[in-house]
Amino acid sequence: MADYKAPLRDMRFVLNEVFDVSSLWASLPALAETVDSETVDAILEEAAKVTCRTIAPLSRSGDEEGCHWNDTVVSTPAGFPEAYRTYAEGGWVGVGGNPEFGGMGMPKVVSAQVEEMLNSASLAFGLYPMLTSGACVSLNTHASEELKATYLPNMYAGVWCGSMCLTEAHAGTDLGIIRTRAEPAADGSYSISGSKIFITGGEHDLTENIIHLVLAKLPDAPAGPKGISLFLVPKFLVNADGSLGERNAVSCGSIEHKMGIQASATCVMNFDGARGWLVGEPNKGLAAMFTMMNYERLGVGIQGLSSGERSYQNAVEYARERLQSRAPTGAQNPGKAADPIIVHPDVRRMLLTMKALNEGGRAFSTYVAMQLDIAKYSEDAQQRERADSLVALLTPVAKAFLTDIGLETTVHGQQVFGGHGYIREWGQEQLVRDVRITQIYEGTNGIQALDLMGRKIVGSNGAWYRLFSDEVRQFIDTADSDLQEFARPLANALDTLDELTAWVLDRARSNPNEIGAASVEYLHLFGYVTYAWLWARMAKAAQGKEGADEFYAGKLATARFYFARLLPRIHSLNASVRAGSESLYLLDAAQF
Amino acid sequence: MADYKAPLRDMRFVLNEVFDVSSLWASLPALAETVDSETVDAILEEAAKVTCRTIAPLSRSGDEEGCHWNDTVVSTPAGFPEAYRTYAEGGWVGVGGNPEFGGMGMPKVVSAQVEEMLNSASLAFGLYPMLTSGACVSLNTHASEELKATYLPNMYAGVWCGSMCLTEAHAGTDLGIIRTRAEPAADGSYSISGSKIFITGGEHDLTENIIHLVLAKLPDAPAGPKGISLFLVPKFLVNADGSLGERNAVSCGSIEHKMGIQASATCVMNFDGARGWLVGEPNKGLAAMFTMMNYERLGVGIQGLSSGERSYQNAVEYARERLQSRAPTGAQNPGKAADPIIVHPDVRRMLLTMKALNEGGRAFSTYVAMQLDIAKYSEDAQQRERADSLVALLTPVAKAFLTDIGLETTVHGQQVFGGHGYIREWGQEQLVRDVRITQIYEGTNGIQALDLMGRKIVGSNGAWYRLFSDEVRQFIDTADSDLQEFARPLANALDTLDELTAWVLDRARSNPNEIGAASVEYLHLFGYVTYAWLWARMAKAAQGKEGADEFYAGKLATARFYFARLLPRIHSLNASVRAGSESLYLLDAAQF
Repeated sequence: MADYKAPLRDMRFVLNEVFDVSSLWASLPALAETVDSETVDAILEEAAKVTCRTIAPLSRSGDEEGCHWNDTVVSTPAGFPEAYRTYAEGGWVGVGGNPEFGGMGMPKVVSAQVEEMLNSASLAFGLYPMLTSGACVSLNTHASEELKATYLPNMYAGVWCGSMCLTEAHAGTDLGIIRTRAEPAADGSYSISGSKIFITGGEHDLTENIIHLVLAKLPDAPAGPKGISLFLVPKFLVNADGSLGERNAVSCGSIEHKMGIQASATCVMNFDGARGWLVGEPNKGLAAMFTMMNYERLGVGIQGLSSGERSYQNAVEYARERLQSRAPTGAQNPGKAADPIIVHPDVRRMLLTMKALNEGGRAFSTYVAMQLDIAKYSEDAQQRERADSLVALLTPVAKAFLTDIGLETTVHGQQVFGGHGYIREWGQEQLVRDVRITQIYEGTNGIQALDLMGRKIVGSNGAWYRLFSDEVRQFIDTADSDLQEFARPLANALDTLDELTAWVLDRARSNPNEIGAASVEYLHLFGYVTYAWLWARMAKAAQGKEGADEFYAGKLATARFYFARLLPRIHSLNASVRAGSESLYLLDAAQF
Repeated sequence: MADYKAPLRDMRFVLNEVFDVSSLWASLPALAETVDSETVDAILEEAAKVTCRTIAPLSRSGDEEGCHWNDTVVSTPAGFPEAYRTYAEGGWVGVGGNPEFGGMGMPKVVSAQVEEMLNSASLAFGLYPMLTSGACVSLNTHASEELKATYLPNMYAGVWCGSMCLTEAHAGTDLGIIRTRAEPAADGSYSISGSKIFITGGEHDLTENIIHLVLAKLPDAPAGPKGISLFLVPKFLVNADGSLGERNAVSCGSIEHKMGIQASATCVMNFDGARGWLVGEPNKGLAAMFTMMNYERLGVGIQGLSSGERSYQNAVEYARERLQSRAPTGAQNPGKAADPIIVHPDVRRMLLTMKALNEGGRAFSTYVAMQLDIAKYSEDAQQRERADSLVALLTPVAKAFLTDIGLETTVHGQQVFGGHGYIREWGQEQLVRDVRITQIYEGTNGIQALDLMGRKIVGSNGAWYRLFSDEVRQFIDTADSDLQEFARPLANALDTLDELTAWVLDRARSNPNEIGAASVEYLHLFGYVTYAWLWARMAKAAQGKEGADEFYAGKLATARFYFARLLPRIHSLNASVRAGSESLYLLDAAQF
């Protein structure tokens, strides 16, 4: 596998030249004093060092060795505990954390870049800090001051890890039917009993303590999703002085054997009357989880991008070096027995597809991160509300589209390698195996699409959609003549999406099956139109600079490829959605 | 994983009701006496038994255990040698083999069904007999009578296995640059030296001897593909009385660690002056290989179908049993906490996509097999030539489209399982890992697309394409009014393909890059139009019978789903191809 090189220039291009984040930061008082582009540059440089040098070299060996379980104890692969310590000591676990409790206080547009590098280096490794910072977001928003003061500093510092315990064997998507119980104790704590599955980082040897956030039901809880509460359950109880006390009654029953992310421990966690503390209000656990979910789901989307980026870097290096056959237009490398395969049109098609989707994906995840920052830091209520709505609308797209695309790009990157792509030592097949989980966990991509189409678009009767559509339309309307080669097809694509959205809204009124029948392909169409807008924005940022610097020429060329060869994917998606739900219900369950 | 159930009724539907193979057999004197529909029924029943009972249970354990190499010796997983013996003793290795040398003499339409079952049961297992029968096809066509008499009977009987040794470390797609050498010896044999990689079944413990077919260069051979010869190199030399003699100088240097097909040994084979015998004429080795290639490539396509079928069977069972959330139109299962997930529109979309593509794929592979039979057995030169042309045209489509679709269908089947789809014990992720190699080996799917577009369509100046297009057009023109719901959209789809074919032919005249720029998406468009035609044919065969038997109602419903939701994929492919090669060449190699 090629060495991973953090795409810092591409990140800076998106942050500074496309989105001008410095101006945004300057306009948000909470960020104006702590964040500026020089500090962020330095942070990204340092993040590149730790991810490229310390973590990336563990990816292959971590996959081969995997995690091991022995009588409730889980060991991570060789090198992981040391690398985790290095990462934690750099303050990276708390990069987006609340400075009051020791976090670095960086906005999400910055931590999103750090996450991209981390997950490109090793998706399996990245899950440990990712789950920790997700748990911190929930605690920071919903926990009592006492819980925050006790737990957040050590979690931001990476001294303790976090885990999120939601799924049970019979309850994945449908959390309303969980069975884990919480009995109140006299001292205000709770006794938690039940069994959770698929718990990422539920047990491991990276940190001295693990703080579990656990969904459970109080004795008098109403049935269904409105009867779920959230509890903090530490592996080791914490004494009043902050030192570790006795072992809590929570243990790891086994770990799963999986397709990929072998170095991430996926645990069965048994709670046998474990002591826990309520986070937020009783029966409002799902809401407390959802605070964290938008961050986590964007984070999972970024994992799709990270995998595609790593696969692309390997594939480009291979395609430049591997000599095989001659270019269709005649030998390019007459002194050798064959030409490098990058001369072949279909190899270029695969590489450009990866490049266009990766760079579009980076612009997209950064845009969504920017909305999260506005929603969190703006002092203007209307601006906050608008950003909140855009986050709600775009998060399922970011999670599902970036990861579906991640599968496509890693498969292309594997295909470029021919037979070697199937061999483990080259690393390309691992990226396919690893990225495949991102389409499944944190709500499957089918569930994301249902969330987009049902809760977000039909649920707001199209209002949130129009916020987005208006922003794209405004870009189109103000595009100058040099930008028309992109603005015109973008306008057509947006018309297609506008009309399809109205069509689904209309159909859903008379038949609720239309929502789920449209959802996945609609989400993809939404994604491609969004990337078209972002590619037009990137082209705009590059125009006029392409003569002096081939970086910008590359951006314009990739934008042209995107519009020519990838955006047309919307035609089929559109036609497929418009076929409606009827053909899905011609068979009854027994006839399949 | 659900038990595998051989889809015998679907196979009989395709053979008897769609293609009426009995009439074809009756018209071919070479088959008329030996093959009839009752015999074939019995053969398929027996094949179902051995694959479902003996082989399918080894698929998961074979994946976990894998093959092991120890100082040139390779062991297959537990149970494989015994199961192989059972399979061989049933005569299945020679099911399509020449009866003169002990083969069963079944036409390809029959052995294609056996291959489908075998590969659904275990793709990794299936490779051993598949490589053997591939080697037999080459030997039967090109080897001397003496070689045939010495080797074919034991190979058809499964007493000896075969392997195909083509690839070298620096030469995969580009076989013209291989370095393996063959020096003539005084006794008419040759001394073979060189190293081959990615040799499926190059070494194992299933049989007492392995017969390698090896590409190598004679001392005076011209450079490039016209200087390659084919040699037979046995692992153990065979004495004049047919007993095994001394060990030949060929050995396995190591085996690969792969993404999937763990139970198939992928070997580095070292030939150190091994004794071999020329097969066919000097320097005509590639042509001798290509005789076998059409059979092998169709076989690889069938592996894609097999994987999709196995994944579908598992997914349907899971979707009927897994209870999660409620149907959008209200509870279907009010007595339980949730409904089975098969009520959800998006789960149905995934299952129907699998079903429509699998059944379309079975009709397609059977159609191509039928052309192979006509090309081999017809006594009418014109009919033979027509079938040969159709085989040449459709083989790359069958190989690449069936396997690209195989990845899609197995990914859907994994996705239906949610988190459990990622866990090894459920078997769905293995099917994804296994099927992924089918898009790569036996010529990557990019190479297949280039073969279709360049050698077959442009190479025949569209003549072979018109043979196919005329057959589809004739079906449309003779469709009665009841069939118009399928015939009309099929006519539009065929128009699209006709026009695109003419467009590419025209563009390729002035720029050879246009062939490779169009090839993969063109092949996919070709595949979807072909499936539309076959689904229309299946609908025709089902019409009128759907009231009495829900099997036929299911066929019509699936045909409607295919036309409504999947055929529209051609719109994007068409637009993408028509964007041409220009956007692929805006970057030079250093700018990627």
